[in-house]
Amino acid sequence: MKIKRIHHVAMAVNDMAPLEHFFGAMLGLEPPHRETRPASNLEIAIVPVADSAIELLKPNGPGSSVPDFIASRGEGLFHVCFEVEDIDAAMAELRGKGLRFRTESALPGHAGTRIAFLDPATTGGVLFELLESPAGETLAH
Amino acid sequence: MKIKRIHHVAMAVNDMAPLEHFFGAMLGLEPPHRETRPASNLEIAIVPVADSAIELLKPNGPGSSVPDFIASRGEGLFHVCFEVEDIDAAMAELRGKGLRFRTESALPGHAGTRIAFLDPATTGGVLFELLESPAGETLAH
Repeated sequence: MKIKRIHHVAMAVNDMAPLEHFFGAMLGLEPPHRETRPASNLEIAIVPVADSAIELLKPNGPGSSVPDFIASRGEGLFHVCFEVEDIDAAMAELRGKGLRFRTESALPGHAGTRIAFLDPATTGGVLFELLESPAGETLAH
Repeated sequence: MKIKRIHHVAMAVNDMAPLEHFFGAMLGLEPPHRETRPASNLEIAIVPVADSAIELLKPNGPGSSVPDFIASRGEGLFHVCFEVEDIDAAMAELRGKGLRFRTESALPGHAGTRIAFLDPATTGGVLFELLESPAGETLAH
């Protein structure tokens, strides 16, 4: 397997306004792309930074691990997402090496991506996501 | 000011071994560059990831904000570093907009870089670093 890049860095927040203000009005980064994920009860804002991005995750209730994370550690940096060439092959290889994933197979992510989260108990305590971009697209956020 | 890229993402740890094992033996990333910063009592391992990097910070005692961070929030994601063109101009501009930095001016960082940390109380609670690469070098880790 090959890690292509840091696709994004995610932050868990109860209120997006302070960080959005910092990224936009202070740093001059582009306005975020917004989406909601009803299945996981999350509002998401994706701020492009060169060929990577910052992702803000705001939970509106249970449905993801974000509320528990905020309850136990507070708002802040939540996970790092690495882009891989072939997520099925990467999952098989990492499982063969003893790592665990939170889901049996990759799930649909934003804009045609496919994603999977590693179990942080097997990755030094930090939450990592793997992501495969849609075929032919190398800079999808 | 213009943010050029996410230069690195830093993680605070008491033991580098689990994350080093994950990045190297599991993900197949390059071996880290290592350094020690006696003034801040830190051991540092920098793992290149495409044109960005992961930075592991292990405190050996007081001298930085890392031990307090680990004591209050536990090991894990610590800060995001953005590369800027001109750190003196960026600091002046952001101060003019009401943000605060932890130091009066930029400090020398790794490999000829110049760095400054923003006060997280003014940036939505998340710790951010700004970094200027040495002249003519655009991909210094």
